[in-house]
Amino acid sequence: MLTYSISDRGSKSLYEYLYTCIRQDIITGVLPPHTKLPSKRAFATNHGISVVTVENTYGQLQAEGYIYSRPKSGFFVSPIDLRIPTEQPKAYSVSVSDPAPVSASFNLISNHTAPDNFPFSIWAKIIRQLLTAQDKKLLISPPTGGVMELRSAIADHLYQFRGILCDPEQIIIGAGTEYLYSLIVQLLGRDKIYGLENPSSKKIRSIYQAAGVRVVPLSMDQEGIELTPENLTMPDIVQISPSHHFPTGIVTSVSRRYGLLQWANQAPNRYIIEDDYDSEFRLQGKPIPSLFSMDATDKVIYFNTFTKSLASTIRISYMVLPRPLLEVFRRTLGFYACTVSNFEQYTLAAFIQNQYFEKHINRMRNHYRGLRDVLIRELTRSPLKNRIRISGEDAGLHFLLKLDTDCSDDFLKEKAREKGIDIAFLSDYYSSDYKQMDSSYVHTAIVNYSALGEQDMDSVAKALVDAWLPWMQDQIPYS
Amino acid sequence: MLTYSISDRGSKSLYEYLYTCIRQDIITGVLPPHTKLPSKRAFATNHGISVVTVENTYGQLQAEGYIYSRPKSGFFVSPIDLRIPTEQPKAYSVSVSDPAPVSASFNLISNHTAPDNFPFSIWAKIIRQLLTAQDKKLLISPPTGGVMELRSAIADHLYQFRGILCDPEQIIIGAGTEYLYSLIVQLLGRDKIYGLENPSSKKIRSIYQAAGVRVVPLSMDQEGIELTPENLTMPDIVQISPSHHFPTGIVTSVSRRYGLLQWANQAPNRYIIEDDYDSEFRLQGKPIPSLFSMDATDKVIYFNTFTKSLASTIRISYMVLPRPLLEVFRRTLGFYACTVSNFEQYTLAAFIQNQYFEKHINRMRNHYRGLRDVLIRELTRSPLKNRIRISGEDAGLHFLLKLDTDCSDDFLKEKAREKGIDIAFLSDYYSSDYKQMDSSYVHTAIVNYSALGEQDMDSVAKALVDAWLPWMQDQIPYS
Repeated sequence: MLTYSISDRGSKSLYEYLYTCIRQDIITGVLPPHTKLPSKRAFATNHGISVVTVENTYGQLQAEGYIYSRPKSGFFVSPIDLRIPTEQPKAYSVSVSDPAPVSASFNLISNHTAPDNFPFSIWAKIIRQLLTAQDKKLLISPPTGGVMELRSAIADHLYQFRGILCDPEQIIIGAGTEYLYSLIVQLLGRDKIYGLENPSSKKIRSIYQAAGVRVVPLSMDQEGIELTPENLTMPDIVQISPSHHFPTGIVTSVSRRYGLLQWANQAPNRYIIEDDYDSEFRLQGKPIPSLFSMDATDKVIYFNTFTKSLASTIRISYMVLPRPLLEVFRRTLGFYACTVSNFEQYTLAAFIQNQYFEKHINRMRNHYRGLRDVLIRELTRSPLKNRIRISGEDAGLHFLLKLDTDCSDDFLKEKAREKGIDIAFLSDYYSSDYKQMDSSYVHTAIVNYSALGEQDMDSVAKALVDAWLPWMQDQIPYS
Repeated sequence: MLTYSISDRGSKSLYEYLYTCIRQDIITGVLPPHTKLPSKRAFATNHGISVVTVENTYGQLQAEGYIYSRPKSGFFVSPIDLRIPTEQPKAYSVSVSDPAPVSASFNLISNHTAPDNFPFSIWAKIIRQLLTAQDKKLLISPPTGGVMELRSAIADHLYQFRGILCDPEQIIIGAGTEYLYSLIVQLLGRDKIYGLENPSSKKIRSIYQAAGVRVVPLSMDQEGIELTPENLTMPDIVQISPSHHFPTGIVTSVSRRYGLLQWANQAPNRYIIEDDYDSEFRLQGKPIPSLFSMDATDKVIYFNTFTKSLASTIRISYMVLPRPLLEVFRRTLGFYACTVSNFEQYTLAAFIQNQYFEKHINRMRNHYRGLRDVLIRELTRSPLKNRIRISGEDAGLHFLLKLDTDCSDDFLKEKAREKGIDIAFLSDYYSSDYKQMDSSYVHTAIVNYSALGEQDMDSVAKALVDAWLPWMQDQIPYS
């Protein structure tokens, strides 16, 4: 009869102890496969314990598959093949630490906003109100597109500030633009060819490639994508940022816009994705109209995000689908849950509805304009002044800085890095399989100033002078 | 000379008014392509306005591409082809309203938890503390895997409650399990074949299909997936819920677990995805061990979610990658931003660290056990008592209810629906291209009780009696 020394169980409960003992005997083969276990009653009597304890022990062993029962004959040991897998895992050396963060003093590559700019107190006030009310709506799952209050607030905002007239139902909320791109690929099809502006953000290319679709680079001039057969024969979908192209800052001209709309209307599967990622931050003149607002043919899908305008750590973006696509979206992707939590959706909805978002944008626009002016002033007063040309400073959170030099862009980056500056060049953003960089763009650095403070600008300008002045044309002594 | 009546401008600013007038003349052809505009100075003098206003007007028109400049000769009208697209969009009839929510009185399909169970006051307390401190960490973008505090808290929790030993860096946070599945497909490859338990949740199948991968159904018996050549030759990846299969409630036996690990070790690209979606809610005995904790060969990817244990509207899930895959993840997908906002990640981290999560789970386990007991009691006391068999009630938030009837499952659903009950049957969850339903599973309803209240159980049982009693075998008068 199977017997265990109950007094050896230490701090374990009787049930836990017996479970461990029997399991151990099964694993080590002390109890071979198909051995009959004692009846619950006999086992209990033998150990002087209650039948319930034995029932629980056998029940757990049975639930996990260590023993099996046969009606009217009792419990038996299961046959378990515990052999160590034939092929041992290969040795590998992975650092488990996440990659170290960038350690330069000033990061001119990031376009994140400085934490001080987040409207903490108002955000906190809204969340407090929401949580105090303990409104049940916070715990009711919204449709795939998101919470209706937020979608209505965004629709109102788009109408007022981007001239976009759409129903709240056309707006689909998602946890960041990257996620929404993966939805778009599922919606429009993985068999389609996606045309991207060249140059473009590397991330956009990576996202489409990770989504498994074919991407082609589209050549650009100062008016935007060129409407050439080379550009427009291949792609089914064209993605552009017509209000402010990254990284060049080019605005797609009105004639190119109509040309693209005409192209899209020549075939049923053609669409234009408009990524309006930083249209809020035009620092000069009126906002550039959105392409969506010019389109009467349901061919434009509009994207925008709050990660740029509010905080990079608040993951809320949205897209506006033309109505015919909305029907397809519901049918094929309507099973997805919305990826943004209700707490944040309702908080943002109240933030927009109560004009806080508008005020925040106005404040940030002034803030960025101030940063830009100070940095440009420092640069144009520095010894670099006759050797640089600044452009694209009217919009967004970066400008271009063309350097009069013969050194390679990689060399210039390395020199900046030695002085504590992380900075990228336009050449970094061209698709490698289609080199066609405009000659006016060589040696052009991209100065993202959004993460800096006004007090940094003097040091940034000095560091760039130290880094680059010795390598410029017509070098004059640095005095 | 181009002249506009300044006094007609109404409430518009001068600049806005002139911009609109000139744009209108360009669009309508009053100003044909390549017409030279007056010089800024002449235009200003002619209208008695400042040169700056004209500069702003011309600047905006140029930025949008309505006019272009030639050095030293001035501004000219751009040639713009505004023709209406040749192909008019087809008429369509899309309802813009989102689909109406389910309107039955009791939903036994949803496994959402009732809003009353959410720990509002503690959650609110933590958020208040976070927001009051205005900690800058809230606004610093975390690595792709998420905020380290949360990943550490989860690693501790997994060690204590699931016997899983992993580094926080192996944990990848994402906005819901659905999103993480799309990452897994990108990580393991779209060319792989994914084997899913049959039956399984329809959503899982939809997600994989939307991700563009081939899915094969794997036959099951009472011990889990059958280790047959039919099941194991085709797939590269096998996904299972070994602790508690949905919808049958089957626990994968220890011998099947070792068999699957052996299978995975026979080829380098084979992996097992363990979806441990509701392991917290085993209502009887000890928790079933996780497969990840039994694997010494880095072949198991572990998934779990807080949407089931906390609230369906808090979109936080995670996966634990074996170390060799972590390296691949960083290299190929490390460009993605984490999809969950920092505010929620830090809130959840504090919630877990301060044992609130553990307490919440214990409270919910008791709550669900109570709901289950009441509903089972009501059913086993009802006139249905000799015509039903209840099983799978030891775990998770649902049990199976086998009905002694000859009617079709669709008919039984319809009858329940007429009495205000939405309920699904096991037959709903079988892959249609591979019908192999176990005969013991016919006429088996799935009773999800998690969204109900104790006070509902009497009504639910009565409604089911009303719906089904007339259609059962050996019908006796309902008294």
